[in-house]
Amino acid sequence: MRASAIREAMKLAEQPGVISFAAGMPSSKVFPIERITAACERVLRRDGSAALQYAASEGFAPLIDWVVAHLSARGLHIRPEQIIITNGSQQGLDLVAKSLVDPGSPVLVETPTYVGALQSFAPYEPELIGVACDVEGPLSADLAARASALLREGRAARFLYLLPTYQNPSGRCISPARRADLAGVAALLNLPVVEDDPYADLWYDEPPPAPVATLLPEGTVYLGSFSKILAPGLRLGYLAAPLALVPRLLQGKTAADLHTATFNQRIALEALGEDFLAEALPAVRHLYRERRDMMLTALERAFPDRRLLDWTRPGGGMFIWARLPQGWDAAELLPLASSRGVAYVPGAAFHAGIPDPRTLRLSFVTVEPSQIDAGVTRLAEVIREAERSAPGIGRC
Amino acid sequence: MRASAIREAMKLAEQPGVISFAAGMPSSKVFPIERITAACERVLRRDGSAALQYAASEGFAPLIDWVVAHLSARGLHIRPEQIIITNGSQQGLDLVAKSLVDPGSPVLVETPTYVGALQSFAPYEPELIGVACDVEGPLSADLAARASALLREGRAARFLYLLPTYQNPSGRCISPARRADLAGVAALLNLPVVEDDPYADLWYDEPPPAPVATLLPEGTVYLGSFSKILAPGLRLGYLAAPLALVPRLLQGKTAADLHTATFNQRIALEALGEDFLAEALPAVRHLYRERRDMMLTALERAFPDRRLLDWTRPGGGMFIWARLPQGWDAAELLPLASSRGVAYVPGAAFHAGIPDPRTLRLSFVTVEPSQIDAGVTRLAEVIREAERSAPGIGRC
Repeated sequence: MRASAIREAMKLAEQPGVISFAAGMPSSKVFPIERITAACERVLRRDGSAALQYAASEGFAPLIDWVVAHLSARGLHIRPEQIIITNGSQQGLDLVAKSLVDPGSPVLVETPTYVGALQSFAPYEPELIGVACDVEGPLSADLAARASALLREGRAARFLYLLPTYQNPSGRCISPARRADLAGVAALLNLPVVEDDPYADLWYDEPPPAPVATLLPEGTVYLGSFSKILAPGLRLGYLAAPLALVPRLLQGKTAADLHTATFNQRIALEALGEDFLAEALPAVRHLYRERRDMMLTALERAFPDRRLLDWTRPGGGMFIWARLPQGWDAAELLPLASSRGVAYVPGAAFHAGIPDPRTLRLSFVTVEPSQIDAGVTRLAEVIREAERSAPGIGRC
Repeated sequence: MRASAIREAMKLAEQPGVISFAAGMPSSKVFPIERITAACERVLRRDGSAALQYAASEGFAPLIDWVVAHLSARGLHIRPEQIIITNGSQQGLDLVAKSLVDPGSPVLVETPTYVGALQSFAPYEPELIGVACDVEGPLSADLAARASALLREGRAARFLYLLPTYQNPSGRCISPARRADLAGVAALLNLPVVEDDPYADLWYDEPPPAPVATLLPEGTVYLGSFSKILAPGLRLGYLAAPLALVPRLLQGKTAADLHTATFNQRIALEALGEDFLAEALPAVRHLYRERRDMMLTALERAFPDRRLLDWTRPGGGMFIWARLPQGWDAAELLPLASSRGVAYVPGAAFHAGIPDPRTLRLSFVTVEPSQIDAGVTRLAEVIREAERSAPGIGRC
């Protein structure tokens, strides 16, 4: 149902002439193609045999060392033995669920939450429980109440899944105070945290707060990604887990696919080198900041009183989260929108419990700047057209 | 237990001076490094943006078309919609188990069987049931008896797992007549077959029989690999499934890691081109055939009466399967062997039910020809030394 809603939205979004705010992809403009080409040539010339051979399940040791240094710069002090290189952070979600979830076991998630995580967890059949959230993040009182209730029933939640920094889909960044509150509740109730953090380097106003894992180093599995800082087509990510959990996760990794492609790990390390991120990230931030600002400006122009649409102002990441008026359904509105040449992802699929059908996700990074204003204008026309219609299109 | 036995063997095998018959890796001599370098350069220059971007979960359509043509040449007629590109065929095993296995559900396997498959299935907690085998393959009468008994209990086996062609670890190739018998039983009892076929192109005497899937096209999930014909470090394989099963497998793939690395799929296709396999496979077969023959000759010289060791003569693949005398244990013997400079993988881990501790797996493809005879000589010395010892080293 979830998967099909997203797939349907993507299909509509791909029709010719449609300006798509649906895709959750980085702009291909930021891919360092030259640098990766040179890295391939060097790696194959120097270490071709090793780069094309089977390798260890945990990953390529020098790339693991790079991750250790990268995390250390964010205040997260991890030992190499705690790290497993994965096929994107998506595989980290799968491995965590495979290791920690049994059918029916409770898992706590944000409201809304990343739909890809819900998809990863689904085959292991957890009972997903949404924690109430406000603009600063999950409410620690609600988290404490739900986690305690489960403990009283004798079935502890297996973990709390958070995407605290520029969340997909809401763009929300959990405030430092709220991070501390949540970590306090988790520590008190012995509740493991899975922290999914693919967007931390994509900040546009100021650097994000330190990861939740810094507050709860013994109780957090941290997931990182190379997709947003290098290129998603390499499928590279990593997890950093408490030592006690590593053997189980590593067994899951071996079982899943033996190891992440040796070739890709060596190319990534070669392409990153000493200096790539310091050189490249400011330009990526500049490009995406400009697109975010253009979309915010376009939204303010198109919906000056915010009566027909309200939205978030993300400090980083790729997404603006918007909401239609009471009684509307973004999924119902989508066919009209795409027939008028604009697409988005309806928000219902991003909810574990009761979905909010009024919500929709707008990606601002993939669309060319020249199209952002036109797309938002089309969206406003569609919403006004639906408002005038009877029976109301897009209302449930 | 299984994983740790193999890991321990590998650790011993990696000590300096040890001639290792343990590794299940292709010889890096056969990797087409130049060709892959050129493919990287061309793909990135021509299609860099697409090659580094997110892509469809099922895989890169032109590579899927290549697989269709490749399988068609083996008599297996598959439609593109039946195929999913995976991270090596190991991921195919994981996806199949994720889709078909619930805790406690019965799965039938060969005796011995591929330990990596047992590892892949383990997280989904099947009840593994070994089917009795002879030199031609699983006994169809035993398969029929076991599958029928399960049906009478009201719990049908989820599938029969076969690696019919140059099996890892036994080197066995199931005979055409036995394939027909097994397919007949499977069809009669409505028993799905999972056919794992990574070694089919590595034949040294004559081409192998057609895949079991040709006899049971509606009832087989077929798993293939690029690891043995191109390079394992790219982590590329594929599965071909009955259409009805594809949506579920594809959902599992999306949940696992969104998709297989776009970059790797495009490079593989570019490197394979029109002619690579026709050009390269004869040389690979020549190299491996020579090594197989050297190991067989060395074994015959070292164990002329086969009293202390008996072994198989594989027609392809990478492994010779050997057996110590009654009452011996290959795992117990391994520390002495590695201290004398030779290593192998003990065979017990390759059994689903009652293990045969006398068995061991010898890989003949990774070791340099100059080392094969020396390694076998060392192995013979170790076994003779153990025979003379009291209490008997390596006996249980």
